[in-house]
Amino acid sequence: MKKAIVLLSGGLDSATCLAVARKEGFECFTLSFDYGQRHKCELTASENISAALGAAQHRTFKLDLRQWGGSALTDDDIDVPKGGTHDIVPVTYVPARNLIFLSLATAWGEVIGAHDIFIGVNSVDYSGYPDCRAPFIASFAETAKLGTCAVDENWQWQIHTPLQNLSKAEIIKLGTGLGVDYALTTSCYDPSPEGRSCGRCDSCLLRHQGFVEAGLPDPTCYIN
Amino acid sequence: MKKAIVLLSGGLDSATCLAVARKEGFECFTLSFDYGQRHKCELTASENISAALGAAQHRTFKLDLRQWGGSALTDDDIDVPKGGTHDIVPVTYVPARNLIFLSLATAWGEVIGAHDIFIGVNSVDYSGYPDCRAPFIASFAETAKLGTCAVDENWQWQIHTPLQNLSKAEIIKLGTGLGVDYALTTSCYDPSPEGRSCGRCDSCLLRHQGFVEAGLPDPTCYIN
Repeated sequence: MKKAIVLLSGGLDSATCLAVARKEGFECFTLSFDYGQRHKCELTASENISAALGAAQHRTFKLDLRQWGGSALTDDDIDVPKGGTHDIVPVTYVPARNLIFLSLATAWGEVIGAHDIFIGVNSVDYSGYPDCRAPFIASFAETAKLGTCAVDENWQWQIHTPLQNLSKAEIIKLGTGLGVDYALTTSCYDPSPEGRSCGRCDSCLLRHQGFVEAGLPDPTCYIN
Repeated sequence: MKKAIVLLSGGLDSATCLAVARKEGFECFTLSFDYGQRHKCELTASENISAALGAAQHRTFKLDLRQWGGSALTDDDIDVPKGGTHDIVPVTYVPARNLIFLSLATAWGEVIGAHDIFIGVNSVDYSGYPDCRAPFIASFAETAKLGTCAVDENWQWQIHTPLQNLSKAEIIKLGTGLGVDYALTTSCYDPSPEGRSCGRCDSCLLRHQGFVEAGLPDPTCYIN
């Protein structure tokens, strides 16, 4: 059974990504990051999703991106914006986050012999982050090949992005068909202390609209 | 004054790299990693080197690569090899280390507006690590551009590798000319608890040979 590293954020997209990897027959090693994000409920969600979808092993890797901040998600002095779309990269962008996360996934993958990495990036219903776009992912795979012991044609890094070109509604329909329980997932950038979603940040708006368009009930627990 | 991130390992090469960055007029933000390496004396060395060479700020970033090991430097069950060269990548290679370190440097650089990163990689007198080669560095710069908010021609990542094509002796002569005090640096993979160098690992052998070839006294404090 081929091994894969699957990045899990606790959200809807990465849970779907794990379900796809499992469907494709991979033995899945899931990796989440305790990076100083505002709320730790997404780490609990990742653990629960891993268990529910039959991951072989789950790790939470700790690294403190809050020490330099630079994002509404890692600096309490920057507010999470509410209620609208935008043309520029929003303040919820965390500098180089996917670059860091993919690099650490590559390291773990090299150690355990997993040359496949799954990441739930998406270019359709997303917040405009540069590190979710296809050219970045393709370039990363090449960099990883050059920077690790890629000694033969059997050791090529494959960065799988099965959600890249799907709308949020299509992702939800795909995951629902694969048995994902979206009640286990959390997408909110600014949940209540009890883990209820705000319903007004970018991520909540995109998520809810996805359920509406998919014609499926939204299982999210909102503040109001 | 342009800002630069300079990666510091506490060793001879990265100290020289910092001296070059200072000579080129950069305001230097130095970054070291407490990644679970065998010995913390290199972290103290990095602090001392930063202060001696006038860095604007020094950070030690903590992340535990020992949790998955895969290297003689991050797994106590793998011995550091002594006394010889080799044709293959040695067990002191830490999977994806420079990929991870450069990614974190990119993140800090994006936050503080430093688009220049200095790293002391070298392809001449080195241990054969894939993440020290020029094609990896060039590919990383492209990936970093694609994965961050590189919105115009003024925001291009420059990964400076001033030591790439120098021999160890040439590096030592360069740094000596720039006032680097190599007694502050530590290169050994397997020092004694007091921080004395073993004199027999790859890194010690390359370092000592460099001083001999440069015709300069070796200030290293060896066990024997």
